[in-house]
Amino acid sequence: MTTNSTTAEDRLGQLGIHLPDAPTPFGAYVPAVQTGNLLFLSGMLATSGHTATAVGVVGKDLDGKAGREAAYTAALNALALTRMQLGSLNRVNRVVRPGVYVAATPEFTEHPKVADAASELLRDVFGDQTVSSRLVFGVASLPLGSPVELEVIVEVKP
Amino acid sequence: MTTNSTTAEDRLGQLGIHLPDAPTPFGAYVPAVQTGNLLFLSGMLATSGHTATAVGVVGKDLDGKAGREAAYTAALNALALTRMQLGSLNRVNRVVRPGVYVAATPEFTEHPKVADAASELLRDVFGDQTVSSRLVFGVASLPLGSPVELEVIVEVKP
Amino acid sequence: MTTNSTTAEDRLGQLGIHLPDAPTPFGAYVPAVQTGNLLFLSGMLATSGHTATAVGVVGKDLDGKAGREAAYTAALNALALTRMQLGSLNRVNRVVRPGVYVAATPEFTEHPKVADAASELLRDVFGDQTVSSRLVFGVASLPLGSPVELEVIVEVKP
Repeated sequence: MTTNSTTAEDRLGQLGIHLPDAPTPFGAYVPAVQTGNLLFLSGMLATSGHTATAVGVVGKDLDGKAGREAAYTAALNALALTRMQLGSLNRVNRVVRPGVYVAATPEFTEHPKVADAASELLRDVFGDQTVSSRLVFGVASLPLGSPVELEVIVEVKP
Repeated sequence: MTTNSTTAEDRLGQLGIHLPDAPTPFGAYVPAVQTGNLLFLSGMLATSGHTATAVGVVGKDLDGKAGREAAYTAALNALALTRMQLGSLNRVNRVVRPGVYVAATPEFTEHPKVADAASELLRDVFGDQTVSSRLVFGVASLPLGSPVELEVIVEVKP
Repeated sequence: MTTNSTTAEDRLGQLGIHLPDAPTPFGAYVPAVQTGNLLFLSGMLATSGHTATAVGVVGKDLDGKAGREAAYTAALNALALTRMQLGSLNRVNRVVRPGVYVAATPEFTEHPKVADAASELLRDVFGDQTVSSRLVFGVASLPLGSPVELEVIVEVKP
């Protein structure tokens, strides 16, 4: 099997990743909306069910490594939600752009390293021919005290 | 009249809501831009004209209830602007995704409750068959000291 | 030559602006992704190469004027990247919406003035017939300590 014929679901299996249940909303919204061939996911947190898997501000309560773990967890949730919405990750043409929002102190500067934990997972699953653009910044605080929130816009195959 | 034939303008009237004047820009930008069938609104604040209707950081100067009032005001402004841009709210196919940005302390965790004041209004006006996705986080500060800013992407009917 | 026939590249030359090299990524992402006729740029900082040209929080370490300089630098980087992606700025139909994210204190309120330094440059280059919408808020911190980050969505000519 050549790299080109390897699918996102194949790669996920090869990585030994089992996706969690897709997150359900915390309020008056739905998990995702598709318009044309763009799928907008609601903000994904570092959660399992409705419980935060980590709580705190990076640079104060948590270090960059814990921030990376939170970013990875949020990215797993984004993958689970994408599969639930589309039926299969193989229907993703590419991730257009994740926004990675890190609850961080004013002094924190290493947001890209935290965000890479999410970006690397998306690249490993969707392949290095369709790497996304990215937006990263430090926010004051996040729902449930999550250290990271992930916004994802996905281009769906026609 | 069945639910399906009730329009957004009908529902707005049934709710007894009178929209304010649409906000005008605070700088070198326009209120909204449509590309294809997506209408991107500029950030909506809790304002009346160019004056903030509330000022402060949620979790310090203001409680969650005051934050909800600010989110509701910003959502009214978004509706007013959408009507001005499209001529009628009935031209909205659905709201794709609001971003609700709450000026909040590092300790604040109840952003979803604040954001729901905006999401509930949008759902009540556009109907529960087309509820949007959502992005919510806490920011350091907002223009004019507004406690909430609302970003809205609208899908316009063909 | 009439205004209508003046191009973005013409205007850039008339303004005497020489664009820097386009920024390269700080992590596992690409500079920009086009989907349909929308080009999503990765977040642009106040950088030259991989070095911040200014560092600090506006309202504490830096004043609004320094914030404006950082916003202008980020906008130059966005123009450079757009030209690199499209071959020429003349392929831009319009800027749909910049997001201008200012590392700011909780007390700062003049984000629009900071953001205008970017918006004015984009207007001067792309013309006042296609002014963009805008999103502006204050964030806790930014990669490299940059005072401003710029998100840009561009509509490309068919």
